[in-house]
Amino acid sequence: MCEAHDANDSIRDCRDRFDLPEHTIYLDGNSLGALPRRTPVRINELLRNEWGESLIKSWNKHDWAAFPQRVSLKLARLLGASASEVIIADSTSVNIFKLLAGALVLSDVETRRIIVSERGNFPTDLYMVEGVNAMLGGKYTLRLVEAEEVEAALDHDVAVALVTQVDYRTGRQHNMAHLNTRASQTGTHIIWDLSHSAGAIPLELAGDGAEMAVGCGYKYFNGGPGAPAFVYLAKALQSNFATPLSGWFGHQSPFAFSGTYVPAAGIERLLCGTPPVIALAALECGIDTFDGVTMDAIGKKSRALSELFMALMRQECGNYHLEFVSPAAENARGSHVSYAHEHAYAIMQALIDRGVIGDFRPPNLLRFGFAPLYTRFVDCYDAVIQLHDVMANEEWKAEKYQTRNRVT
Amino acid sequence: MCEAHDANDSIRDCRDRFDLPEHTIYLDGNSLGALPRRTPVRINELLRNEWGESLIKSWNKHDWAAFPQRVSLKLARLLGASASEVIIADSTSVNIFKLLAGALVLSDVETRRIIVSERGNFPTDLYMVEGVNAMLGGKYTLRLVEAEEVEAALDHDVAVALVTQVDYRTGRQHNMAHLNTRASQTGTHIIWDLSHSAGAIPLELAGDGAEMAVGCGYKYFNGGPGAPAFVYLAKALQSNFATPLSGWFGHQSPFAFSGTYVPAAGIERLLCGTPPVIALAALECGIDTFDGVTMDAIGKKSRALSELFMALMRQECGNYHLEFVSPAAENARGSHVSYAHEHAYAIMQALIDRGVIGDFRPPNLLRFGFAPLYTRFVDCYDAVIQLHDVMANEEWKAEKYQTRNRVT
Repeated sequence: MCEAHDANDSIRDCRDRFDLPEHTIYLDGNSLGALPRRTPVRINELLRNEWGESLIKSWNKHDWAAFPQRVSLKLARLLGASASEVIIADSTSVNIFKLLAGALVLSDVETRRIIVSERGNFPTDLYMVEGVNAMLGGKYTLRLVEAEEVEAALDHDVAVALVTQVDYRTGRQHNMAHLNTRASQTGTHIIWDLSHSAGAIPLELAGDGAEMAVGCGYKYFNGGPGAPAFVYLAKALQSNFATPLSGWFGHQSPFAFSGTYVPAAGIERLLCGTPPVIALAALECGIDTFDGVTMDAIGKKSRALSELFMALMRQECGNYHLEFVSPAAENARGSHVSYAHEHAYAIMQALIDRGVIGDFRPPNLLRFGFAPLYTRFVDCYDAVIQLHDVMANEEWKAEKYQTRNRVT
Repeated sequence: MCEAHDANDSIRDCRDRFDLPEHTIYLDGNSLGALPRRTPVRINELLRNEWGESLIKSWNKHDWAAFPQRVSLKLARLLGASASEVIIADSTSVNIFKLLAGALVLSDVETRRIIVSERGNFPTDLYMVEGVNAMLGGKYTLRLVEAEEVEAALDHDVAVALVTQVDYRTGRQHNMAHLNTRASQTGTHIIWDLSHSAGAIPLELAGDGAEMAVGCGYKYFNGGPGAPAFVYLAKALQSNFATPLSGWFGHQSPFAFSGTYVPAAGIERLLCGTPPVIALAALECGIDTFDGVTMDAIGKKSRALSELFMALMRQECGNYHLEFVSPAAENARGSHVSYAHEHAYAIMQALIDRGVIGDFRPPNLLRFGFAPLYTRFVDCYDAVIQLHDVMANEEWKAEKYQTRNRVT
């Protein structure tokens, strides 16, 4: 049955764009995307023919100066955004800082001193709120709510809501258009964190009324470990938007070496330091793995993989107290699902030893991600069978699986 | 004569550690360091064997999680700092933001509302002061002074001085120990920008009483275009130091996924987002080109190269109105020298066409940098002879040299 699904999969050939290890079923592309075949070739070329051969001249000869814009152009299509609204720069954390600080300036009135986020949001998002607020003298209050309370929390006293579209643990997906509509009614700015949604589900940032967003380059976009992140800012907000991270590449004319900061007219004002050229080339290769593929096709396959995995889990692993904690409705989910178990950490280690790589997330979650470009339907089947065996044989009870690695 | 200098050069073999293009004399390693031979090999290995083969497991298996610390350990020796005081992260611009914001918290009293910097400081340094200050409500005044006025400007009303040790245009070098002593008397925090000094001149950050510093990975450290930067914070200041860029990798326990930010005990609190693994591997190769070489040897050769170049310029190009604008005294200079000429841009383009790569810096400077690991004494000679010919033949007057590239 799974073989038939794969045979009918319109984007099955995309898997050949990746160099995947043998004897491994990789269900963690939502944590670190797989290596595109092209990446080592392109990086070697960049190192030897661009950096090595042309040295400093490459900033002009190979147009390194516009590298962020060039890659962002390709990325924009995958986000449902205009190229003039997306720029690749820095890390997700740093980009959150830029947007948050800038958004708070836009809504700086005494009657709006609340920042809303989710209690279970990814830690760095919440930490950056702390950092921005401390620098602003602590005049904001961070109001943490549950996922289902976000909409109601978008009230007139809320300056900014920092909302992660797909939860990194459960995969729960917010309705972006819906929340944006609500936010526009109360004058709240939403900053979307797309780390676990972009590249896996269809997005229409412009069409859905998104004002600001950040996202990750090393997950579904396959940019490599610690790849640069991206930031989105709707055109209408750009000319008045000020980031305190006013580095020279965000200047309207960096190479004029002027002593006074004048921000670039458009999205480039969200650049900061010198662009990370090698990392950008790797990210470009990652984004290029989406060539010729529509996000609709990606989203459709993501849902099919998830549904199949869930059905197989019910069928094969129903007896092992693995509690499904993701939303049941497919439009309420991203591209990963999670199961709670008291011994999730040990179970995941045992599963990894069987060649199935998922993720453990504290306190007690087994997480499985589906990267539509390279995950096959047979992978879902094989993974579930392996998990069944880990549970049936109680392999996870082995001593060696009880001690946590530094990085979980 | 130059051949004899090279034959007697104790670190002449270090040039073999680089893959330099033929028929090129590269005197711009202070803008972008040359490609180490090891870099493409190591990056290919990292891409294929670490990322490709082990995927997410590499965070433990190849200890990517401690990558910044591992490379910083090697870097610390070259800065005269302890490994616990240096960390590689983000860009120079972003690191200036971290230190500046943190330093202003340390000295937040009504009687200190001045930030001192040099009028001709590198633009991004000044821009970041603007950004930080805007976020703090504009309560600071940026007092810009000339290089020779910095010492006198370090008064009791100055919270922070942002001082670039070696000026990017003239190569003028500040006496670090001297200014640090003065600053300690007035309670001013100095943030040193080492972008044009680290890796070319001997530094004793700890011994010279430096409190805070940032520097660049892609110049003398050969980390590749847009390489990550570094930040130094003296041990004594660390436990009370708060950066508003409080990302998850600066947390004392990132993988506990706690909802509240608790900074790491030491220098790691200056990390922010997920470390850029590929870029860190390239930077490590760059720093490894210093293996077995003392900074004393580097500094000695830097001075010898500069002095030779200057003497040859007087001898061969004395008639062409190229005005030497760098300090004459060798201990007042870094590892580059500059000459002013009304047509500096065109002259440099003509020189580059002859295979001698220096840099033009607005408004009218020809800049020549000496990277002791790979610049030879014969390179200085050949460069000056080529420049002589450009001037003698008036080659720079050609039409094609008059239009500026985007990146100068």
